[in-house]
Amino acid sequence: MSKVTHAIQDVYPDDFSHCYGCGRLNEGGHHFRTGWDREQTVTYYDPNPEQTAVPGFVYGGLLASLIDCHGTGSASLALHRKNGHEPEGDVEPPRFVTGSLEVKFLKPTPQHTTLKAVGTIEEIHPKKFKVHTDVYAGDDIVVKGEVIAVLMPNTFKA
Amino acid sequence: MSKVTHAIQDVYPDDFSHCYGCGRLNEGGHHFRTGWDREQTVTYYDPNPEQTAVPGFVYGGLLASLIDCHGTGSASLALHRKNGHEPEGDVEPPRFVTGSLEVKFLKPTPQHTTLKAVGTIEEIHPKKFKVHTDVYAGDDIVVKGEVIAVLMPNTFKA
Repeated sequence: MSKVTHAIQDVYPDDFSHCYGCGRLNEGGHHFRTGWDREQTVTYYDPNPEQTAVPGFVYGGLLASLIDCHGTGSASLALHRKNGHEPEGDVEPPRFVTGSLEVKFLKPTPQHTTLKAVGTIEEIHPKKFKVHTDVYAGDDIVVKGEVIAVLMPNTFKA
Repeated sequence: MSKVTHAIQDVYPDDFSHCYGCGRLNEGGHHFRTGWDREQTVTYYDPNPEQTAVPGFVYGGLLASLIDCHGTGSASLALHRKNGHEPEGDVEPPRFVTGSLEVKFLKPTPQHTTLKAVGTIEEIHPKKFKVHTDVYAGDDIVVKGEVIAVLMPNTFKA
């Protein structure tokens, strides 16, 4: 299976759904969708030919973007579950922003392969989660990432 | 002044100029351009309205992309200068890839403002440079980043 059935981004409120990475209402964006896979989280993505570093290999900024939105989505999934909810329900999930992002590029990421980001979530504070992410291209882990996701502060709200 | 006159990306060889972030031959890409400002490096960018996190604020993945390409471009500038060359010359510069990327989001980055990435370069190995980057929106540093840029290995070459 390489599709997320119930993604947290499907139930973000409309005013939080314009993100270039994962907003369902951003027409030109990547539309990353993140869901549970038992106790871990997953996001799949097929890079398009333009998203290249050098021909044949995926652009690092796209991989950083994938890890970023996968991280905030995973944190939202985790706090939502802690609060007794799943993304297939109709309760509005908590919103997170990225405090920091780390990306280690282990090997060149081949184009024309579905990428799978797999997240492991660690609660480090009632309002902060650390999400460790491995990005797979086929059986290989090509990139590792870490996001500190922070419950969205009021300064971000319009 | 908010324009780089002599950018290292202008003189990358054609086969290294398809990067989605900074390749002059990638039609849909960001076209980041990085040049010297005395001993530091600069890249300017005007985010477009689609590159948003929540309305009014710039997408974190775009900021990570800016820091990434600014980092590899800065490393190329630094080694090129060490070898006795400047980007306005006609010598092909060395090519770098990103080993790792760290981004700290200090405050929300407002849309509709020219971003200025300012890099400070540290040589940590004959083939590796660490680039510390501050991203300014007006007078505020909104994001800080660090890139380890590595001289391009043969595995990346087609």
